[in-house]
Amino acid sequence: MPADSPDSPDFTHVREGLPSMVDISGKSANRRAAVAGVRVELGAEIASKLENGDIRGPKGPVFQTAIIAGTMAVKKTGDLIPFCHPLPVENCVIEMLPDATGVTVRCEVSTTGKTGVEMEAMTGASVAALTIYDMCKAMNKGIVIRDLHLISKTGGKSGDYHA
Amino acid sequence: MPADSPDSPDFTHVREGLPSMVDISGKSANRRAAVAGVRVELGAEIASKLENGDIRGPKGPVFQTAIIAGTMAVKKTGDLIPFCHPLPVENCVIEMLPDATGVTVRCEVSTTGKTGVEMEAMTGASVAALTIYDMCKAMNKGIVIRDLHLISKTGGKSGDYHA
Amino acid sequence: MPADSPDSPDFTHVREGLPSMVDISGKSANRRAAVAGVRVELGAEIASKLENGDIRGPKGPVFQTAIIAGTMAVKKTGDLIPFCHPLPVENCVIEMLPDATGVTVRCEVSTTGKTGVEMEAMTGASVAALTIYDMCKAMNKGIVIRDLHLISKTGGKSGDYHA
Amino acid sequence: MPADSPDSPDFTHVREGLPSMVDISGKSANRRAAVAGVRVELGAEIASKLENGDIRGPKGPVFQTAIIAGTMAVKKTGDLIPFCHPLPVENCVIEMLPDATGVTVRCEVSTTGKTGVEMEAMTGASVAALTIYDMCKAMNKGIVIRDLHLISKTGGKSGDYHA
Amino acid sequence: MPADSPDSPDFTHVREGLPSMVDISGKSANRRAAVAGVRVELGAEIASKLENGDIRGPKGPVFQTAIIAGTMAVKKTGDLIPFCHPLPVENCVIEMLPDATGVTVRCEVSTTGKTGVEMEAMTGASVAALTIYDMCKAMNKGIVIRDLHLISKTGGKSGDYHA
Amino acid sequence: MPADSPDSPDFTHVREGLPSMVDISGKSANRRAAVAGVRVELGAEIASKLENGDIRGPKGPVFQTAIIAGTMAVKKTGDLIPFCHPLPVENCVIEMLPDATGVTVRCEVSTTGKTGVEMEAMTGASVAALTIYDMCKAMNKGIVIRDLHLISKTGGKSGDYHA
Repeated sequence: MPADSPDSPDFTHVREGLPSMVDISGKSANRRAAVAGVRVELGAEIASKLENGDIRGPKGPVFQTAIIAGTMAVKKTGDLIPFCHPLPVENCVIEMLPDATGVTVRCEVSTTGKTGVEMEAMTGASVAALTIYDMCKAMNKGIVIRDLHLISKTGGKSGDYHA
Repeated sequence: MPADSPDSPDFTHVREGLPSMVDISGKSANRRAAVAGVRVELGAEIASKLENGDIRGPKGPVFQTAIIAGTMAVKKTGDLIPFCHPLPVENCVIEMLPDATGVTVRCEVSTTGKTGVEMEAMTGASVAALTIYDMCKAMNKGIVIRDLHLISKTGGKSGDYHA
Repeated sequence: MPADSPDSPDFTHVREGLPSMVDISGKSANRRAAVAGVRVELGAEIASKLENGDIRGPKGPVFQTAIIAGTMAVKKTGDLIPFCHPLPVENCVIEMLPDATGVTVRCEVSTTGKTGVEMEAMTGASVAALTIYDMCKAMNKGIVIRDLHLISKTGGKSGDYHA
Repeated sequence: MPADSPDSPDFTHVREGLPSMVDISGKSANRRAAVAGVRVELGAEIASKLENGDIRGPKGPVFQTAIIAGTMAVKKTGDLIPFCHPLPVENCVIEMLPDATGVTVRCEVSTTGKTGVEMEAMTGASVAALTIYDMCKAMNKGIVIRDLHLISKTGGKSGDYHA
Repeated sequence: MPADSPDSPDFTHVREGLPSMVDISGKSANRRAAVAGVRVELGAEIASKLENGDIRGPKGPVFQTAIIAGTMAVKKTGDLIPFCHPLPVENCVIEMLPDATGVTVRCEVSTTGKTGVEMEAMTGASVAALTIYDMCKAMNKGIVIRDLHLISKTGGKSGDYHA
Repeated sequence: MPADSPDSPDFTHVREGLPSMVDISGKSANRRAAVAGVRVELGAEIASKLENGDIRGPKGPVFQTAIIAGTMAVKKTGDLIPFCHPLPVENCVIEMLPDATGVTVRCEVSTTGKTGVEMEAMTGASVAALTIYDMCKAMNKGIVIRDLHLISKTGGKSGDYHA
């Protein structure tokens, strides 16, 4: 066997420092959930347009569009984040809590799998917030997306987490 | 905890009327199947080109290309339909029954999962039909895709369905 | 040069009968538009739930969700249909005309490009209709998606088309 | 022509309130650029691991992986944000400025097109930040992604913008 | 029932010769792994740029970028190969063994599923090699990607395979 | 302005060594083409099954399926290769030249754009070859994909290239 064959025992020692996925094949599949939150500062003028639980921007209903985009992004998390394992999303709830200057977005994701869904929840909250920005940017380019963070994580071997 | 925190108990009451996925995390994984059908009216001239079970259009074999496109679309259902759960497709059979004026397409999908594969079967039949349209449209722009419907669904808790 | 080299002049004669894309590289970029239509038979019970221009299904607003899904699918047409050229979508309008037994969906797409957007319009109408099915199927599995067809096409060298 | 035909003149009046893309087909293609920024609070312990311009997390080099993921996400912006027009990205530069407690990420995108690349820059910064979170979350689940905002936008008809 | 109904018993006999997926719904889910290898002939000049385990090309670190691209492609295998079943990747390790004239790439993939991951391993090795080509092509367009092959496969009913 | 602001002039000096896209925004859009070739060693037994220009494997026609998969992959090149610019593919021709022991695949791609389509041609050839492997692997796991290389490239400022 030549030294440069991929079958060579030398091979397994060269990956020091190179990026790689975490091996989850030996873990057991549990029920897991995660919640992420983010704040979108819309400014008082846009926030005052709230009516029947949504804001109507020039392209249509802001929150409804953002919830749909965020939910679809949750399902694409493994495509976006290089070392995320693909997971079968079993539930996704994205909620909007508007107030006088903006909206707080909360994204909760559940699965039954071998690893957690933190990245799914973070990605869903993030793309929902980006969509709110896109639906409102003709009214205010200075919108800021603040404090995206993990609120909680349950079900993994490493124990539950609450921010 | 501030009232607008995503952790706030107020939060869970605001999503009335906003779109959301159905929670399947508490369901059990069963063997499930669904069959959808659709009719493509090609017109007699195109239909008469049938030879060895396929029609050769200006871009190549129509049915074979449509079967491949439909099968690939079945695997993308969760990407296309906002609140569809991603499911591991275990089988997909797309069949073509040509006659004197068109072709009837049948798409059957199976999985072992917590929810049904109706949307996968409907999406596969639909994209197969769209591909037939695309492969033949240089010959007839008036092709009509008719009567896409669910033929049957088996394996879920809500009971089997037959059209 | 060996006979089986990809550089061999023999090579260009073997593709008879094999599928292929149409070469548009010699065409000029024009403004082009296409409109497709489709009918979704919801049944009188679901259709009667119409309120403020939309139907609220168990997963949320039906038409709004369908318009978003259809618009996103228009942008994925080149991913779904094997020999479609990717085109920069410049406009997409999906409209819903509900009545006593269902809804008629109309999808209009525009671009400036070297080929038409018929497949984009047909795909957008189709995925909007599939999403309506998905949002309502808990209420009626017998919904039928009827008469998907090209309504018009303008801007290409082959002349305008009106159904 | 029946009243519910998609060709009906009634049709164009029903889309009030429904979401839709902005029509850019009449605009001219200009050189456009946008820059977005975001701050990732890693905490002093992770930040102190900086060596040769990158942090090595348990899955590999954090910033390099984040730059690659962010660049790939820029190209997927039209897939993620429902009413974004697909644009041919001509340049994308993602930079990392680390300090004692975290890293500031800057994403600059350029195109020649009919609409701006604000959403591409915002999405690239956002997915780069999410990837930093993913590469470091085994060390600290409390990482916060702060103040995602548009820094500047140049080249559109509505004038330049600087935060 | 009309003869051209998709429910017709005639239907199941027409698919002779048409392409289709293999039905895995009756198989059991086992732990499965596969390893693929490929050789990239960079030429001595590029190969001599190796430093700290990577080559720095004009667009950045070659091997790290290739490992990330290959890992992401492993997750897209079911999107690329028409009749591949989508599988939940549980581990993916891509390694690089550089020498005086090029680099040998090895890609190992594991899952727990009803079918093997040969195509995932082959696709990961292939896209890693294509990315190496892309990162180095400004220095040498004559790079050749050689001998992509399956090294081993374990865990299926048909027995293990070692090249 | 704080030193760690993304607007800081310091920022532009930190990206040394980090990966990045090549800026093509200042280049002009030309007609460009590229051709790639690859050899698939099927073994004499599989190769002898050739009939009417294609091989029928257990999943259906091998070359036709591979041509479709390769063409679809050409359109996904910018999704697979991290620093590839997305380009509007205007033509793609994938050809198969079978012989007694295997098949030579040739993929030609054309565009009008600011950068070349080498990676599109290489990716199309590569995914066509992977699909041939997938369609035949039940008959022979020892199939080898050999000598993927760029055959020619025309139309760029750096001059034409012929292998």
